[in-house]
Amino acid sequence: MTDTPVTDPVWTDRKRRAAAWFEDLRDRLCAVFEAIEDEGRDSPLAERPAGRFQRTPWDRAADGPGDGGDGGGGTMSILRGRVFEKVGVNISTVHGTFSSDFRDQVRGGGESGGRFWAAGISLVAHMQSPLVPAAHMNTRMIVTSRGWFGGGADLTPMVPDDRDTQAFHGALKAACDGSDPGYYPRFKAWCDDYFHLKHRGEARGVGGVFFDDLASGDWEADFAFTRDIGTAFLDIYPRLVRPHMSRPWTEADRAHQVQRRGRYVEFTLLYDRGTAFGLRTGGNVEAILMSLPPMVAWP
Amino acid sequence: MTDTPVTDPVWTDRKRRAAAWFEDLRDRLCAVFEAIEDEGRDSPLAERPAGRFQRTPWDRAADGPGDGGDGGGGTMSILRGRVFEKVGVNISTVHGTFSSDFRDQVRGGGESGGRFWAAGISLVAHMQSPLVPAAHMNTRMIVTSRGWFGGGADLTPMVPDDRDTQAFHGALKAACDGSDPGYYPRFKAWCDDYFHLKHRGEARGVGGVFFDDLASGDWEADFAFTRDIGTAFLDIYPRLVRPHMSRPWTEADRAHQVQRRGRYVEFTLLYDRGTAFGLRTGGNVEAILMSLPPMVAWP
Repeated sequence: MTDTPVTDPVWTDRKRRAAAWFEDLRDRLCAVFEAIEDEGRDSPLAERPAGRFQRTPWDRAADGPGDGGDGGGGTMSILRGRVFEKVGVNISTVHGTFSSDFRDQVRGGGESGGRFWAAGISLVAHMQSPLVPAAHMNTRMIVTSRGWFGGGADLTPMVPDDRDTQAFHGALKAACDGSDPGYYPRFKAWCDDYFHLKHRGEARGVGGVFFDDLASGDWEADFAFTRDIGTAFLDIYPRLVRPHMSRPWTEADRAHQVQRRGRYVEFTLLYDRGTAFGLRTGGNVEAILMSLPPMVAWP
Repeated sequence: MTDTPVTDPVWTDRKRRAAAWFEDLRDRLCAVFEAIEDEGRDSPLAERPAGRFQRTPWDRAADGPGDGGDGGGGTMSILRGRVFEKVGVNISTVHGTFSSDFRDQVRGGGESGGRFWAAGISLVAHMQSPLVPAAHMNTRMIVTSRGWFGGGADLTPMVPDDRDTQAFHGALKAACDGSDPGYYPRFKAWCDDYFHLKHRGEARGVGGVFFDDLASGDWEADFAFTRDIGTAFLDIYPRLVRPHMSRPWTEADRAHQVQRRGRYVEFTLLYDRGTAFGLRTGGNVEAILMSLPPMVAWP
């Protein structure tokens, strides 16, 4: 039997580098969000203290309900503040064996005998202000009998703003174009398709990019692209938060926001593959469902 | 080809009677809930007007996103009041053809060539007071190449009260025992199994009864049992609302309530078969998701 990515030393180094990148990106995201909280002294909720991230590590072997005799874990970072109502940034690095009924649903999961390794970062920001868009970013590396990257970033404004939408897409397009001019149109369309609430015939937000199964044959290039998506998000999202965060909002704006958040919950629980993957593979429930909004209405 | 329940005149009459019963039960439930709203003049939110049901009919052929060239429809009844924060009572009578990938998941759906008829009533009550239990009741008749009843009732107190739990289960046990002494233990266990949040290892509430595929061979007896479950709920639930509805609650009680409601949403969107059935068969989205709580927190 030849080495597969699960056991090959070349892949051991790749795993280490990817996991280290997700951790570094997490630190940079948390730092800029805490800086925004400090700047929130002119925001409508300025009387509240600037929020700080609280980090909670979790251990998969100890906490996970899944089967498979597995290992790894992660760290949840949550900030509840005056600009960010609830923002979670999770990183995790897990490995083990998929259950027999699940492995065939994952690329290479049958060939690896169900063995897998996965690491990633996942971010969801729900904002106090109905005038500041919510956002999601996630990138991950998964290894079975093969290895690949996936991820994306998308924006969910409660009140869409054409300039914000163009700036967000422009930043992601630039990141994509640095790797392959075909990526942006393909990954934008994939995002529109993925974040679609079929039962309502609605988009979740104004889109972004989504990619999965990225294994071009050049691992270094794929890893660089994955980093570029993270870096593009780190750069653009704060530039969409700051111009709106001090604007006053009305009760009607807030009512609209908490109602629109219901769509976010519907998507996450009815359709999101990452949520299903996490719940099926014994991930930490609090970490997986950290993406759900802090206050939601189905009036 | 012999007549199946989809086309047999004997079943035509049964369908008519079942649909008429669901409508009658709806009227009686709405009447008692409106009476409770009138009695809410001593409740903590007494300054608000007594709530009244608003009825909205919907037409499946016109509104439904499903495939199948189908018919039927239903009526949503929603009351937003001072005792009931949001209570919905839906009735529907629909027929058509299941999509080819769905029919084999329904009993007799393959044998009927996907043809089906279904009628039912579904009720979910989310209360203003964190001290008044939320409740769910649903009964339905489904016909494919065979016909059967399903349904149940269960209670979700935010602060469990042993006397309430015993009274609720006692009423359902009495209804069950009137048909078959084996029903209550079997349907109680089924309810505990069904309303289980596997990802959290938690029960949704304090249970009740749940039954499906009820086709004993004596349709009249099965229909009578189904009516008895509805009547038992009609009798017992108001007797669990009235003693608590005027008690004052604290902000901490309310925070606990909106957080516990998150579990209700997770169950509905991750696990509930009725929700999946409705969304898959082109039911009315607003009617199906009317069961979601009016205000929810994942803090």
